[in-house]
Amino acid sequence: MLIIGEKINGTLKKTAAAIAARDAAFIQDLAQRQAAAGADYLDVNAGTASAGEPEDLAWLIDCVQAVVEVPLCLDSANLAAIKVGLERVKYMPLVNSISGEARRLEGVLPLVAERGCPVIALLLDDQGIPADVERRLAIAGRILDCTRQAGVPDERIYVDPLAMALSTRTEGALIALETMRSIHADHTGVHFCCGLSNVSFGLPVRRLVNQAFLAQALAAGLDAAIIDPLDQGLINMLYATELVLGRDHFCRNYTKAFRSGKLFLA
Amino acid sequence: MLIIGEKINGTLKKTAAAIAARDAAFIQDLAQRQAAAGADYLDVNAGTASAGEPEDLAWLIDCVQAVVEVPLCLDSANLAAIKVGLERVKYMPLVNSISGEARRLEGVLPLVAERGCPVIALLLDDQGIPADVERRLAIAGRILDCTRQAGVPDERIYVDPLAMALSTRTEGALIALETMRSIHADHTGVHFCCGLSNVSFGLPVRRLVNQAFLAQALAAGLDAAIIDPLDQGLINMLYATELVLGRDHFCRNYTKAFRSGKLFLA
Repeated sequence: MLIIGEKINGTLKKTAAAIAARDAAFIQDLAQRQAAAGADYLDVNAGTASAGEPEDLAWLIDCVQAVVEVPLCLDSANLAAIKVGLERVKYMPLVNSISGEARRLEGVLPLVAERGCPVIALLLDDQGIPADVERRLAIAGRILDCTRQAGVPDERIYVDPLAMALSTRTEGALIALETMRSIHADHTGVHFCCGLSNVSFGLPVRRLVNQAFLAQALAAGLDAAIIDPLDQGLINMLYATELVLGRDHFCRNYTKAFRSGKLFLA
Repeated sequence: MLIIGEKINGTLKKTAAAIAARDAAFIQDLAQRQAAAGADYLDVNAGTASAGEPEDLAWLIDCVQAVVEVPLCLDSANLAAIKVGLERVKYMPLVNSISGEARRLEGVLPLVAERGCPVIALLLDDQGIPADVERRLAIAGRILDCTRQAGVPDERIYVDPLAMALSTRTEGALIALETMRSIHADHTGVHFCCGLSNVSFGLPVRRLVNQAFLAQALAAGLDAAIIDPLDQGLINMLYATELVLGRDHFCRNYTKAFRSGKLFLA
């Protein structure tokens, strides 16, 4: 599974302050610790500072690329910021994101098609986030029509099924799991990516719920996740679940991870 | 899920010694701690002392029943021991086990049919444990033919799909998971029960692998497990997985378990 390090996120207070103050040391520490923990991509989100976002994202990218050799996940709803990011990156980035919204399909899709970037596709549209599996599948179908028409192969699409808070809906995770299974059955080339922490919003011992969701999401086809690569419980669950699902031949990945000190109970 | 406490097991050295020495305090401590941790049944296994097993099991049962009010899981391959156990128990026990072996079907099945006990059914026969899903399903079919003919309703059968060590076979857990899914699809009344620790045999950080297997087994239909109810990681995973699978309405069980101090990261 691809691990996309989530920690450089300008919607969080401390990181927003570091971006505003151009505190490179703070950002670079987040980058280096996530890279050392094995992140495959580092998400860079400059926050929602409207007019200043492209400039902030450019600074973030330069700052991170000065210290680590890990590709970036350009995380913005701002087309200008995505454009600036695409000019700036050293390695092929993952773009976060397109969706069923007309604005995203018209603005971001041509850019990723032109550059050959992998892209995250959120299953929402101009009507918002659908409550049921059926309407999420319909949005997935419409997005795939557009990406295929734009010449983007399915293998570059990372569908985010949008797991919702269990505290507000008992089926909040199940709907995302069923959505992945259905899409996987119909479109075997498509990848899946999601954040894990939405499901545990408002609940106690959140990291435990995130772990349990990761285990089920891996079984449903998740092959990339935006997570904290320093969360030992998640890393443990990732290796152990791949093992249990029969995806780790001769337990090689699990035992190798153990020998390199990656697996332990806190 | 039903939790069957596994700790009173005479195949373990210390417990065997306690049984031989008639050390009631040792056994009763195991019983009380498991009961306090919420075990629904306590497994009692007197070891494989051949001729002495019925007498040892009778002592174990008296010893446990003197201090806790929890039904027992009579765990023996010895027909005479099962008979003695059935005479001795205060509450309706779970019998561990029948299988596709002629000896078990002829010896144990009539006893559980007569008493109305729930019973664990191991998917093995006189040829041993089958390596593939298909032959396990065939054994399950033959066992269910017999139990139905004996008048035992499917709801009293706890099929053990026999999860095998991942260290010797990459698909050791997957075969058990697929077996449960297939049986569940064809025979919705049947329950599933298994031990978790076989899968992790020979691997490092075994408790982690057991947790990951529990998460997948719950999704595949497991509704009883022979586990250590004092293993915090398993109890955490049990509640969090039921929650993620949409089986915990309004998160009531999870939040209640948290408030009563049952859920925490070590």
